[in-house]
Amino acid sequence: MTILLTGADGYMGWPTAMKLALRFPDELIVGVDNGFRRLWVHEVGSWSAIPIKSMDERLEAFKEVFGQDNIIYRHLDLRDYDIVKALVEEYKPRAIVHLAAQPSAPYSMLSPKHAIFTQENNVKITLNLIHAIREVDPSIHLIETTTMGVYGTPNVDIPEGFFEVEFRGRKDTLPFPPQAGSWYHWSKVHDAGNLMFAARAYKLPVTDLRLGVVYGTNTEETKKDPRLATRFDFDFWFGTLYNRFCAQAVAGYPLTIYGKGGQTRGYISLEDTAQTLVLAVEKPAEPGEFRVINMFVETVSVRQMAEKVKEAGSKVGLDVEVMTVPPPRPEALEHYYKPDLRKIFDVLGLKPKYTVDKALPEDLEVLMGVKERILAKKDKFLPKELREKRG
Amino acid sequence: MTILLTGADGYMGWPTAMKLALRFPDELIVGVDNGFRRLWVHEVGSWSAIPIKSMDERLEAFKEVFGQDNIIYRHLDLRDYDIVKALVEEYKPRAIVHLAAQPSAPYSMLSPKHAIFTQENNVKITLNLIHAIREVDPSIHLIETTTMGVYGTPNVDIPEGFFEVEFRGRKDTLPFPPQAGSWYHWSKVHDAGNLMFAARAYKLPVTDLRLGVVYGTNTEETKKDPRLATRFDFDFWFGTLYNRFCAQAVAGYPLTIYGKGGQTRGYISLEDTAQTLVLAVEKPAEPGEFRVINMFVETVSVRQMAEKVKEAGSKVGLDVEVMTVPPPRPEALEHYYKPDLRKIFDVLGLKPKYTVDKALPEDLEVLMGVKERILAKKDKFLPKELREKRG
Repeated sequence: MTILLTGADGYMGWPTAMKLALRFPDELIVGVDNGFRRLWVHEVGSWSAIPIKSMDERLEAFKEVFGQDNIIYRHLDLRDYDIVKALVEEYKPRAIVHLAAQPSAPYSMLSPKHAIFTQENNVKITLNLIHAIREVDPSIHLIETTTMGVYGTPNVDIPEGFFEVEFRGRKDTLPFPPQAGSWYHWSKVHDAGNLMFAARAYKLPVTDLRLGVVYGTNTEETKKDPRLATRFDFDFWFGTLYNRFCAQAVAGYPLTIYGKGGQTRGYISLEDTAQTLVLAVEKPAEPGEFRVINMFVETVSVRQMAEKVKEAGSKVGLDVEVMTVPPPRPEALEHYYKPDLRKIFDVLGLKPKYTVDKALPEDLEVLMGVKERILAKKDKFLPKELREKRG
Repeated sequence: MTILLTGADGYMGWPTAMKLALRFPDELIVGVDNGFRRLWVHEVGSWSAIPIKSMDERLEAFKEVFGQDNIIYRHLDLRDYDIVKALVEEYKPRAIVHLAAQPSAPYSMLSPKHAIFTQENNVKITLNLIHAIREVDPSIHLIETTTMGVYGTPNVDIPEGFFEVEFRGRKDTLPFPPQAGSWYHWSKVHDAGNLMFAARAYKLPVTDLRLGVVYGTNTEETKKDPRLATRFDFDFWFGTLYNRFCAQAVAGYPLTIYGKGGQTRGYISLEDTAQTLVLAVEKPAEPGEFRVINMFVETVSVRQMAEKVKEAGSKVGLDVEVMTVPPPRPEALEHYYKPDLRKIFDVLGLKPKYTVDKALPEDLEVLMGVKERILAKKDKFLPKELREKRG
């Protein structure tokens, strides 16, 4: 049996490849990527704080460390339908874990070409996968990480995908309306819509994991050998909040909060993220089912996160300063936020290993070991216009 | 002053170009198209029942008939951002009426490549327009015809874009959730999402006209000279319901109903469609406003439409038969359907000139004049697999 993993070279992709390979030792994990994430981070002038190896070197190390060779890597551009179809035909996977995407909201907002590229790249790859599955074998379970960001920040509770509404005296169960805040997030709204329709039109089993913000330096597997490390981005464009704050703390650079820091999001560790993806493969959706699962472990506001990093930092000898800057994207700075969080436990059976509080000391320690690499790119914590505003 | 019109060679596009030119005689109407609609209809092996001229011949005839030469035509592919930006820079329009799209649901369902093409084509052109406006002049009013099909057929009333919901004791005004039924319809869902975000992020004035099914052979302007005719498609892929039924009636071919024929949709004549687009230009949205207007005049079920065509046919000597075939796409065959219809009258001030009942005798008469052209392609009323089923 085979499992296809797109975006295998990414921050989540490589750790997920290893966790899948270890969980399913008799199956082949086919990791696919075109290396674009390395290119995008290079484009914005930054790099991974933790040095990473090529996919070939990683696979060699994986074999050495774990004594298994059931991961292979294919360097392919999934924007081409014929390539995607040939790939699915060649390996006939029982599941596709689809992580390949341009994942950065700030990158998608850089310029018209970045906005258009992000939507075209992300939406087209997902469409190609949908149609390849439909043509080759509609029983293949398609698992995609979209984002909690598709819901935006409505003034009501956020359900897991669907909610029952009463409107003018009549009732229906409807998809929860999307209200995303960047071209990237809208690309995932479009994916989610296309996935919902594909499940219905072609009876595909589809799992839409509405992923929160992923954080952390390691998983159980990446820790085993430096050659098994996954990337760790800390720049404004590709470093998500926790990761960037940790890097800023290590670099002695103030933690930057947009506005009052009331923006609240769901968070999940890299370890629990990879584990959730394994569980989604273990427990597939039904044919025709569009299974939406909110994927995070706790909600934290920006200000709370800054305080947590400041506190954890003080325990490892870091004097962390917190500073306010104007928000770079249009989003609510103070808002209600109560997303449902049930299916990740009840349906998938996740037992989280981490919370932000538990992970922080470990991650700060790892990053203190690569302080020089962070300092070398500390001008990438904020884009030029925001650096100037902090004066 | 200039008005840019995309899709100027299309069924709605050409009549709209003329109506805009006559309503705003001191302004230049820049019509843009790449002729793809002619290509797609050729691809499915059909043609326009009413013969149409090239854009050059139409413009020559328009000048002759109306004594105005304020329409120009640019043959351009709007999928290229640099072309779109250069176009907007060159003409600095005050409004863009965006009709360019692959508009057929059945065509979008033909194959993986047709599905992917439809979404890429439609979504990318709209993204290009959004970003060109943002870069060149954010005050340009962007008007797009999306579709009533973005709402699907929910079991509650359909508002005009947004609705107030109470969920678990809290209230919010949310976008009405999309539930479309084809890859084409989802392309318009994606457009609507991108337009909503663009209005908010860049303070653009945006009008999203959720268009029903457009029908009819003529507008006041196309009637004036055969060289001013617009296309009239009657094949399975590009002929929408009213138009195809009229052609089938004229050809002596039974009217084909999917299932019980309970599928209900909103309808608006070509004349009223072009007039509504003129009104949307006259009365722009505010900067940052995402103005959603349901655009139709009446709702009619498939069975009712068949009965209306049968009745109108009998008055002009046509013996019309009605027949049932299995549905080609997954959609509800009997459903609640109550979309709001207020803003097209209250905000835009449309005074409809037609209903289906009023238009039918006129359209049947026109089509009886091109009966030979319809008969030549009567194998295109249904795709092969459905033709065989009726046997």
